[in-house]
Amino acid sequence: MSKKILWINPVGTDLFDRPIKDYLNEVKNSDTYLEVISFKRGPHHLEYQFYESLVGLDILRSIKLAEKDGYDAAVIGCFYDPFLSEAREISNIVVTAPAESSFAIAISLGHKFSILVGRRKWIPQMEENVIKYGLKERLASFRSIDMGVLEFQKRKEETEKRLITEAKKAIEEDGAEVIILGCTAEFGFYKKMEEKLGVPVIDATIAPLKYAEFLVELKKVSGISHSRKGKYEMPLTEEIKNWNIEEHYQFKW
Amino acid sequence: MSKKILWINPVGTDLFDRPIKDYLNEVKNSDTYLEVISFKRGPHHLEYQFYESLVGLDILRSIKLAEKDGYDAAVIGCFYDPFLSEAREISNIVVTAPAESSFAIAISLGHKFSILVGRRKWIPQMEENVIKYGLKERLASFRSIDMGVLEFQKRKEETEKRLITEAKKAIEEDGAEVIILGCTAEFGFYKKMEEKLGVPVIDATIAPLKYAEFLVELKKVSGISHSRKGKYEMPLTEEIKNWNIEEHYQFKW
Amino acid sequence: MSKKILWINPVGTDLFDRPIKDYLNEVKNSDTYLEVISFKRGPHHLEYQFYESLVGLDILRSIKLAEKDGYDAAVIGCFYDPFLSEAREISNIVVTAPAESSFAIAISLGHKFSILVGRRKWIPQMEENVIKYGLKERLASFRSIDMGVLEFQKRKEETEKRLITEAKKAIEEDGAEVIILGCTAEFGFYKKMEEKLGVPVIDATIAPLKYAEFLVELKKVSGISHSRKGKYEMPLTEEIKNWNIEEHYQFKW
Amino acid sequence: MSKKILWINPVGTDLFDRPIKDYLNEVKNSDTYLEVISFKRGPHHLEYQFYESLVGLDILRSIKLAEKDGYDAAVIGCFYDPFLSEAREISNIVVTAPAESSFAIAISLGHKFSILVGRRKWIPQMEENVIKYGLKERLASFRSIDMGVLEFQKRKEETEKRLITEAKKAIEEDGAEVIILGCTAEFGFYKKMEEKLGVPVIDATIAPLKYAEFLVELKKVSGISHSRKGKYEMPLTEEIKNWNIEEHYQFKW
Amino acid sequence: MSKKILWINPVGTDLFDRPIKDYLNEVKNSDTYLEVISFKRGPHHLEYQFYESLVGLDILRSIKLAEKDGYDAAVIGCFYDPFLSEAREISNIVVTAPAESSFAIAISLGHKFSILVGRRKWIPQMEENVIKYGLKERLASFRSIDMGVLEFQKRKEETEKRLITEAKKAIEEDGAEVIILGCTAEFGFYKKMEEKLGVPVIDATIAPLKYAEFLVELKKVSGISHSRKGKYEMPLTEEIKNWNIEEHYQFKW
Amino acid sequence: MSKKILWINPVGTDLFDRPIKDYLNEVKNSDTYLEVISFKRGPHHLEYQFYESLVGLDILRSIKLAEKDGYDAAVIGCFYDPFLSEAREISNIVVTAPAESSFAIAISLGHKFSILVGRRKWIPQMEENVIKYGLKERLASFRSIDMGVLEFQKRKEETEKRLITEAKKAIEEDGAEVIILGCTAEFGFYKKMEEKLGVPVIDATIAPLKYAEFLVELKKVSGISHSRKGKYEMPLTEEIKNWNIEEHYQFKW
Repeated sequence: MSKKILWINPVGTDLFDRPIKDYLNEVKNSDTYLEVISFKRGPHHLEYQFYESLVGLDILRSIKLAEKDGYDAAVIGCFYDPFLSEAREISNIVVTAPAESSFAIAISLGHKFSILVGRRKWIPQMEENVIKYGLKERLASFRSIDMGVLEFQKRKEETEKRLITEAKKAIEEDGAEVIILGCTAEFGFYKKMEEKLGVPVIDATIAPLKYAEFLVELKKVSGISHSRKGKYEMPLTEEIKNWNIEEHYQFKW
Repeated sequence: MSKKILWINPVGTDLFDRPIKDYLNEVKNSDTYLEVISFKRGPHHLEYQFYESLVGLDILRSIKLAEKDGYDAAVIGCFYDPFLSEAREISNIVVTAPAESSFAIAISLGHKFSILVGRRKWIPQMEENVIKYGLKERLASFRSIDMGVLEFQKRKEETEKRLITEAKKAIEEDGAEVIILGCTAEFGFYKKMEEKLGVPVIDATIAPLKYAEFLVELKKVSGISHSRKGKYEMPLTEEIKNWNIEEHYQFKW
Repeated sequence: MSKKILWINPVGTDLFDRPIKDYLNEVKNSDTYLEVISFKRGPHHLEYQFYESLVGLDILRSIKLAEKDGYDAAVIGCFYDPFLSEAREISNIVVTAPAESSFAIAISLGHKFSILVGRRKWIPQMEENVIKYGLKERLASFRSIDMGVLEFQKRKEETEKRLITEAKKAIEEDGAEVIILGCTAEFGFYKKMEEKLGVPVIDATIAPLKYAEFLVELKKVSGISHSRKGKYEMPLTEEIKNWNIEEHYQFKW
Repeated sequence: MSKKILWINPVGTDLFDRPIKDYLNEVKNSDTYLEVISFKRGPHHLEYQFYESLVGLDILRSIKLAEKDGYDAAVIGCFYDPFLSEAREISNIVVTAPAESSFAIAISLGHKFSILVGRRKWIPQMEENVIKYGLKERLASFRSIDMGVLEFQKRKEETEKRLITEAKKAIEEDGAEVIILGCTAEFGFYKKMEEKLGVPVIDATIAPLKYAEFLVELKKVSGISHSRKGKYEMPLTEEIKNWNIEEHYQFKW
Repeated sequence: MSKKILWINPVGTDLFDRPIKDYLNEVKNSDTYLEVISFKRGPHHLEYQFYESLVGLDILRSIKLAEKDGYDAAVIGCFYDPFLSEAREISNIVVTAPAESSFAIAISLGHKFSILVGRRKWIPQMEENVIKYGLKERLASFRSIDMGVLEFQKRKEETEKRLITEAKKAIEEDGAEVIILGCTAEFGFYKKMEEKLGVPVIDATIAPLKYAEFLVELKKVSGISHSRKGKYEMPLTEEIKNWNIEEHYQFKW
Repeated sequence: MSKKILWINPVGTDLFDRPIKDYLNEVKNSDTYLEVISFKRGPHHLEYQFYESLVGLDILRSIKLAEKDGYDAAVIGCFYDPFLSEAREISNIVVTAPAESSFAIAISLGHKFSILVGRRKWIPQMEENVIKYGLKERLASFRSIDMGVLEFQKRKEETEKRLITEAKKAIEEDGAEVIILGCTAEFGFYKKMEEKLGVPVIDATIAPLKYAEFLVELKKVSGISHSRKGKYEMPLTEEIKNWNIEEHYQFKW
């Protein structure tokens, strides 16, 4: 069952596009067509909430465009799951993001999970997401490796070392049975970590891609799709037209 | 990527085997080999906790057998998810069950879900499961249609009518955006319900099958599997031998 | 102690600017200078998450501008508290918003509060906010009057009638001891409601203005201000410069 | 008021029968008749969920037999409280178990309690029980002494030393005011611990025996007994007969 | 094992002393010596928090006196459990109260309980107690019969009728499996209610008396008693002397 | 807008009256008239619950007197917020207290707060208050400096040193973004702490005074006041007269 999926790196650099595409091509379904994009402008990482707010419209534009272009799904490639809820509100395609997807996997792999982040600054907002998703009880802890998004792939050895160190503490001190890598730029480390740690390690790029494939598959065989009542109720085209939203925001509705 | 999956109807009647196999064949992956079994003895439904305790060993025997027979996954086909945790403890294959699987899907389809059960008797135990799974915050409500497991397929029209009535109340009064059918014997109703209700309705047989396929796929492409530390830590073969467990319980370890 | 406060109506219509300014002038501190603005573009209400995401940058631009213009505080005039967290991240002035402010008042006025919204669509996101703010235990209920933001002031009599009806139910059926009006456009009704209901009714425009005055006052006499560690840690000017954020987003940092 | 109580050591060894009987005879009511049994087959401890599932039917058979033999109460002697809920479902006699009983005592002895377990493997499931019982807020922590069930009585000195060490940490670091011994095989240590620690230490064998006496007494003087609606609703004799449960499971209903 | 127990009716009327003594004599242990007292001054019921604060010192004086007089236990006879925590702080005897005792029983009788109160005014404070005791998850609901404390025994028929009506709703609409009578003046009704309702009904006078007997028994056979670290840490005699507390408050320390 | 506020030091020593008055005069509104009182009798600190119960009536007498004397507000100057709820029940003036007020400020200053107490003994009761106020999710931790109330001002240097040490741990280990000083006698330290720590530090004397001014201001401009339904419903004058409360308790109603 063919699936057309768009991976959005919601940042103003194409630095990660090629590596992530190559990386995900190894794990995607054979009949999945995968495209990876990033933005022409914008911050190179989303470590601050302000940076996220900058890329909001570009994310939503891409989602809407993906829908028009016949994509079955789009992945918002940042562990904050930025504008995931808004993306579902405005489109009928499947939209996934790393945190929610990782949790949808983690809940069947072990009792509690710990999330390894780059900086402690990320924790409050990510913890709010865990709470919002209703999964606080399954969270063992957050652990920070004190490195920035842009360092992970540049200093692989150090990153790996720290990830393993903090994961061990999470397992031994916090009771984690599953480790989640709390940043899409932490890709490429999970296998080595699993070997060293002996527990499952969820990769934040693989999780949302595979969860997207899963939801697309589910939709194709059974028709099920996200709810259009309540949280994801669709905005009104009439209002959008009346207010000239398309023109004022260069937004193709 | 071929997948071999065993569906276990954990009851002492084969009444549902054929219909569920036919039903799931419509939605399974093209490369999934699906077998459906039930037990030679046992209660015909699991509405009481006592009935569940009766089928525990037969479920675990089947899991262990499935593993030996090269199955990639087994599904325990009852919404109480009976012995799911034990099954993961003793085997390396993927094991899924309806409630957990439905929640892994529901969390991305809408804000809150309601679960439609047959009898109010089921609610306390199922609510404990929702709490154990850490998802209490996402639960809008339980609603009962006051019918038994064995009636759903016999009195389809009445069942459908009541499911729609209660689902409507769940949406309008309890704030549900997603409906979950809280019994595998409630299969065959979700499509009509979705049409009438305008919200996604999760079928308790499709959910664990597809979630099983998803987890198998994930395992095959990335090697990830359930944790062997903590909750699912494997019992010791030496103890099992020393205590003659195999002989005393006719249990092939 | 003089205070300069900017009220932001985060919508693309100035419809509410004059009435809200007049209304708040009645209750503001004698030494508060109050300005009320709205945007040149944008949706006329924020009933959908998409609409919120559209006005994000304009809100943050206004905050930053207010800071440069010597304002002591800014109020984001929408009960979703949109971009409140981001606003605090990027500025050193006091920023308040209706929901958080109302809760800061409500917790000392009674045991539990109910929030009266316009449409049920608003509830999931607002409930997430209550949870994020950590106040779920104090929430008696949400109640909807099934009217849109733009109707409240146009159909005052009907609005008032419905607000009173739902508030009564909240008090009698849900155990509310305090009522919160869950939209800034629901201004002008609280006094009449208090008379009829006999419980305090928190107006969503007065609350954030007065709470802003309170925080400014607190800051002036004791120096206390929002934390710059963790959630509200300030983004790096160097990064913003390097990435040409100011140019690409017409954002004056 | 005479009470006839059956203590079930739910394991396939009579190793603990004599010592526990002697031990409990010191603390039982003068008019309590106490019998202690174990099973002919089965694991010698229940450190794994699989081992619990093995002994389920034998526990329930014993409960049913105890009821027929005129016992007023039965105690399931394992801190996982295995099949406690099922036991209440199928019988009218009082059934207690260590964890629930310890909590029923602990809640009046101090603010928070810590539970001392043998291995960390036990914690996830026991923590789920605390959550299921609704007492998460009163739990200070779990602490493990890293010893197995079968070692406690063999290596008494070491066990005592470790129990005291971990209890001290629980008191000083986790805020425990009450210590609960999380295994029935940890009997014989509480007095020395209390002396050393200065806080109450609940023994997991004394607690369920005395709580059973308490509930029997309560039933005899006031008639109150566990609910037969909802969670503990009794299975139907007709179904059990129709499905040949008695024959197929050698279960005397 | 003889037990000397003091029941304190913490009100300024002896109206309930005789009836409660007679009532409890029917259910007490044969070797329990029971005394029932009330105060010379004070409100006749504790429906307001202010009334509770009035009787605080008299309760604590009685506790201290009971300890000196060789009582093993004292019961504070009001469902708000007023000054229970303080009473334990200042004495070494067992102190119980209706709410906590009822919960210690209810948790083993069914999944969830509902509490029947006289007036809705009582609910906020009692709900806070349930939360403080950590048992919110087990609470199905509060239901009010809209009658005052002093009416229950005067208008028995009406009281009984309303209790049954509200209990039925609690069972059918709120999922209660156990009913708790939320006032000591609601004595004398539970038996009839159990007959009509088919679920256990906990009497708020019997519960704390029997729980007190249980704790005294436990203390006598095993030495266990409430914690003297943390919440119930004993005040310092030296301070009490230095500050002339005994003289200024006519309080015999 | 003039405000007349009474600060109550609920202890039997005037040791803190002058210093607190001087201290608060620096931060109060220019048009606030502030009076500070303490009691003629009573404990010199409230580290034990028993001590609190001693001062209950004197607090409530002062509240009632303040109301008669035309005060707009009263502050109960102890971080346990003793008898705050009762005080609101019996009067129509604004009543505030340190913990609740600090939380009403803290929720807008950062994600999580830690509370620095004198002794660990204080924690259980204060944690119950945080839970009662519904703010458990916002609490990072309690930290104790192991000093008594009466030492803080006597050993200022040591107090300051320990406060800074524990606050640092709270920030670095517990994730606190805001520090709250959990005792009114910890006044005079927050500024130095803020300099050293770089996060906001809430002073437990300034917070309730300013929050009182805020609520009075709010009441004067909009008429809003605490709820008279439910938790703060006023006791009945008729009952108070009939029971001779005024005479028996020297309480001027």
